Amino acid sequence: MEQLFIIKIGGNIIDEETKLGSFLQEFASIKGKRILVHGGGKLATKLADQLGHPQELIGGRRITDAETLKIVTMVYAGYINKNIVAQLQARGCNSIGISGADGNTLKAHKRIHPEIDYGFVGDVDQINTPFLKELLDQQMAIVVAPITHDGNGQLLNTNADTIAQEIAKALSTSYEVRLIYSFEKSGVLLDVNDEQSVIRQINPSSYKKLKQQQAIFAGMLPKLDNAFTALDNGVKKVIIGRAEDLQQLIEGRAGTTIVNE
Amino acid sequence: MEQLFIIKIGGNIIDEETKLGSFLQEFASIKGKRILVHGGGKLATKLADQLGHPQELIGGRRITDAETLKIVTMVYAGYINKNIVAQLQARGCNSIGISGADGNTLKAHKRIHPEIDYGFVGDVDQINTPFLKELLDQQMAIVVAPITHDGNGQLLNTNADTIAQEIAKALSTSYEVRLIYSFEKSGVLLDVNDEQSVIRQINPSSYKKLKQQQAIFAGMLPKLDNAFTALDNGVKKVIIGRAEDLQQLIEGRAGTTIVNE
Repeated sequence: MEQLFIIKIGGNIIDEETKLGSFLQEFASIKGKRILVHGGGKLATKLADQLGHPQELIGGRRITDAETLKIVTMVYAGYINKNIVAQLQARGCNSIGISGADGNTLKAHKRIHPEIDYGFVGDVDQINTPFLKELLDQQMAIVVAPITHDGNGQLLNTNADTIAQEIAKALSTSYEVRLIYSFEKSGVLLDVNDEQSVIRQINPSSYKKLKQQQAIFAGMLPKLDNAFTALDNGVKKVIIGRAEDLQQLIEGRAGTTIVNE
Repeated sequence: MEQLFIIKIGGNIIDEETKLGSFLQEFASIKGKRILVHGGGKLATKLADQLGHPQELIGGRRITDAETLKIVTMVYAGYINKNIVAQLQARGCNSIGISGADGNTLKAHKRIHPEIDYGFVGDVDQINTPFLKELLDQQMAIVVAPITHDGNGQLLNTNADTIAQEIAKALSTSYEVRLIYSFEKSGVLLDVNDEQSVIRQINPSSYKKLKQQQAIFAGMLPKLDNAFTALDNGVKKVIIGRAEDLQQLIEGRAGTTIVNE
């Protein structure tokens, strides 16, 4: 099967023009098919503050009321998505930016939670894989903003890590998928303050031990759980590491590789 | 040749949920290929005011400084574009929302003017017609936000009427193009205060007379000049009329039809 790289970019790198530029340069030079899923950095929070509408977070998840949904739609699907696409075009990488509503790519339902009202937050139900394959076959890079829709006209805010994982799973029947979570750290660290302490490889049994020893920063656990779920669902490889090291991550020379055996 | 409808929607209708909904219902029910080009309504101006960054207009054109470009990118390519797409999906019309950067659809250059610095305003140089045709062949409606790019990573603000006209001209070699400018008036009016005074048809010689008699509201003249330019460049028919009458405009039962002979 043909290779497909699905790369999630998150963290503060989106707000840092130079770092983002060098990441996009490396992304543009990837040979073959690729999808970029981006988060929102701090821009949405900043805009919300400017508009006098401070954000509420519960367990690291933004509570998305109607005004917040408007803000994230503007920032993610508008400002960030279109700037990334324009930057990629400038680097000779033909690309198209989409939200989950475009081409009915990501259909979701509004999250129902017994205790917390997350607001307009969507959990993905369905992915239009033929449409994504059609775009990839046109040799275009796809840039996905973390906004989904419910099929009834309602846009929804969806976690970008989850979107990357869901797309990776859905496309793993058609491609040999490598899922890369890139952010500001060098990988999964044994010591969160030491960028040299990258764990090069994690498999289910070493993950179990690391958890028992509480050796991994708690914030990394959802990412790792996501990674193993992806591997259980057909994704070939998951790599976690620093966005600026993209080329090395792809070549397996940097970051943490998560494997299933 | 196959028919293609290119419909520009502008004016205040974008801000009015009910009117926009019934317009989109009619758009969704069009048989065959279609492209929707939208403006921004008053939302961009409102957001700019909220952010303490009031807009400057010269001759009806917004002066686009860096902050204004950010605002229009968020509002046009983000909020409005994605909401229209989600609304169309809800009406069973598969659609994709794009800016001019996506798929390298609309390449432009920053306007150079001897006296006025319009800022980040783009004049269109090149249209990626194969890409548009590819999307249309997938039976998707295309929803275009009036944002272009210069190929060097710079997004630009471009008038939506002009974009509709440029796309219409470019695609007229492949389709029998009907270009519809829809807005809040019933058509080109003899008396600007009387919605019943629609001029049903205008051709070059009647246009000349109407101009001499100063019978047409000055604000309509750029739209009409655009219409004749489009007809001179291969577009089959141009129709101007009220957005809510879309079906009747298409059938030639309402609005003003501009013809070349």
